[in-house]
Amino acid sequence: MKTPFVTLPQVQELVKTYPTPFYLYDETGIRNCARRLKAAFSWNPGFREYFAVKATPNPQILKILQEEGCGTDCSSLTELMMSERCGFSGSDIMFSSNDTPAEEFQLAAKLGATINLDDLTHVDFLQNTLGFIPETISCRYNPGGVFQLGESKEGFQVMDNPGEAKYGMTRAQLTEAFTKLKALGAKRFGIHAFLASNTISNEYYPALARILFQTAVELQRETGCHIAFINLSGGIGIPYRPEQPENDIAVIGEGVRKAYEEILVPAGMGDVSIFTELGRFLLGPYGCLVTKAVHEKHTYKEYIGVDACAANLMRPAMYGAYHHITVLGKENAPCDHTYDVTGSLCENNDKFAIDRQLPKIDRGDYLVIHDTGAHGFAMGYQYNGKLRSAELLLQTDGTVRLIRRAETPDDYFATLVW
Amino acid sequence: MKTPFVTLPQVQELVKTYPTPFYLYDETGIRNCARRLKAAFSWNPGFREYFAVKATPNPQILKILQEEGCGTDCSSLTELMMSERCGFSGSDIMFSSNDTPAEEFQLAAKLGATINLDDLTHVDFLQNTLGFIPETISCRYNPGGVFQLGESKEGFQVMDNPGEAKYGMTRAQLTEAFTKLKALGAKRFGIHAFLASNTISNEYYPALARILFQTAVELQRETGCHIAFINLSGGIGIPYRPEQPENDIAVIGEGVRKAYEEILVPAGMGDVSIFTELGRFLLGPYGCLVTKAVHEKHTYKEYIGVDACAANLMRPAMYGAYHHITVLGKENAPCDHTYDVTGSLCENNDKFAIDRQLPKIDRGDYLVIHDTGAHGFAMGYQYNGKLRSAELLLQTDGTVRLIRRAETPDDYFATLVW
Repeated sequence: MKTPFVTLPQVQELVKTYPTPFYLYDETGIRNCARRLKAAFSWNPGFREYFAVKATPNPQILKILQEEGCGTDCSSLTELMMSERCGFSGSDIMFSSNDTPAEEFQLAAKLGATINLDDLTHVDFLQNTLGFIPETISCRYNPGGVFQLGESKEGFQVMDNPGEAKYGMTRAQLTEAFTKLKALGAKRFGIHAFLASNTISNEYYPALARILFQTAVELQRETGCHIAFINLSGGIGIPYRPEQPENDIAVIGEGVRKAYEEILVPAGMGDVSIFTELGRFLLGPYGCLVTKAVHEKHTYKEYIGVDACAANLMRPAMYGAYHHITVLGKENAPCDHTYDVTGSLCENNDKFAIDRQLPKIDRGDYLVIHDTGAHGFAMGYQYNGKLRSAELLLQTDGTVRLIRRAETPDDYFATLVW
Repeated sequence: MKTPFVTLPQVQELVKTYPTPFYLYDETGIRNCARRLKAAFSWNPGFREYFAVKATPNPQILKILQEEGCGTDCSSLTELMMSERCGFSGSDIMFSSNDTPAEEFQLAAKLGATINLDDLTHVDFLQNTLGFIPETISCRYNPGGVFQLGESKEGFQVMDNPGEAKYGMTRAQLTEAFTKLKALGAKRFGIHAFLASNTISNEYYPALARILFQTAVELQRETGCHIAFINLSGGIGIPYRPEQPENDIAVIGEGVRKAYEEILVPAGMGDVSIFTELGRFLLGPYGCLVTKAVHEKHTYKEYIGVDACAANLMRPAMYGAYHHITVLGKENAPCDHTYDVTGSLCENNDKFAIDRQLPKIDRGDYLVIHDTGAHGFAMGYQYNGKLRSAELLLQTDGTVRLIRRAETPDDYFATLVW
């Protein structure tokens, strides 16, 4: 069972100021999660989390994470600009991108961000773009093939397909890139890899760490490059379904420590810093989309129409993703109705739930769509001319603050020629 | 073989003013298509096309279609506002929506638009929202089950699943809605249905017309309502793949005429107007996304990285949709390379083509991504902080005009609280 971090009376109060739909984030939940992560890796003096801005690109969220000691992981020009404006600079920023435009490398270098090169050809591209190679540089590794964890946790197998992914360099290219970068003046090196998305397993990070640690030892021996950090990237997931187990970040941190002590320390590399780039894990559960039931429809199925749509949350439409739904005030009512919960887009994939067992829903009921704190608002669009919602922050003192206003028709029309 | 409506020298000239990526629309193609459609249905004195604004929501496109005699099919508040600002009013506007907010019904009624009710419950909702029922009103029909055309054209079978679609009323609900609406003051009635999307078949509209015509005859007899128009909605597709046959709109128009003369005329309903709501058919082939190859990558596959991404065109990422690609200046070169053509999003589904046979592509080459005139720009998003591109119009006189400026970081940041 999933319990929302907001109650019906709170929402009834909020809607007096902020009409539904809106996103609501839980500052306390975010801070506690960031602290659990930091504690789990406190054995590594250089540890740092670089929050994946793409998950929740909002300055107020970034500032909370900044206070918790996080840097930012940026993938584009605007994410770099937002980080700069929030006071991140230099080694606070990791720039991990692919198919990267020249102007993005330029801004990243200007900010002193650590650039993580996606491809061997980017060595020359960077040199030609900047006229120099930064002293600190990282390369992204893609081991190819299929990545699979033998261990599965209560039936949730971890498997992904790096060989089909557009990201990263082959093992041989890593060596070539390091050698070239060193010759061009790079002094501090890092390696990075992302092998599986949204894993529900305490074994993913340790397994990835073993691959990267072993590779780091080899690379340092082969190229003489000083490897200063290893970036485990993202991939630690959250349980979207109530029956799924949670990851235990303390167990994950210990698993990585074990690999570190078995592989890096004996190789004389006990000074390597561990970096992470979590987005979903840090924000996902601590944001929800609050929406109101406005229509009910009885045709070949039973439908509840809400005032949010895929323009606000695209994951169900794009990926068929499950997001748990709680009907506020009916938390303990029996789930004895079967509904499709729909938005108003002229797209039949605009359904937040299909054949979902829920309590009887009446018009005017407020629904909480769970675990939308990451890749929720960020993936919104304006198809059918729909407008994106406000974002609100439930602060640690219990008050609520607007951290993004809702779009207006003028926003939607802003780029048009009339 | 697909031939772009723009050449390499034209693009080389354009990029001096408008950096890639950009959308380019072909005014001549749009106008000719609108005229072919009008001619195909000229046998019906009341015929009118209501362009589906959601396909290409740009005022300059709407004005071209207005000059060709089209009205607009709107599905949201902003689409109604855009139509009004472009000079559409009253019966120029069809409002077809589902899970409709009250404010959208209010604006539709204020503009005198023809409202197409998606659901039986919307009769009361409309009456309660407006305080009255407009004299002209339409209802959307969903016959349920699976819709299938026995005839297939060169292997392209038409099949869709209305019973799983959230739209429309059952047959019994249509009768109930008409009866209620008449009692509440409605005088001119229409019916509407959409049973299959992007059909490549000259038989779809005639088959749909037979269903709707028969239903109209029954409804008029049962309820005594005067049925003034029948709206065949959208669904006429385009051949995205070069090997697919084109629909012949003249044949389609004749097929509908035959059904009209066999069913409506004998029933004394020879005064019924036929409406269509085409979007893809009118705009799809007459727009393209022009992008530049900026990176090439050689890992487990061969990749070409371009400066457009799924933020500009989402159909391949969301639906796995095929869009043909022409490398400008290499139209006649052998397609002897196999590429994944990717954008720069941190999403592995950000690929415009997978394992596509293309000529050898060099950095700096311009690629035309075909058939993106409908549901292209309109479905763009800003994930990863990416900005949406400009839209340009290739006018009938051969000159090019900006019809939407590219987004800037300020647009992206506009709703934030810093």
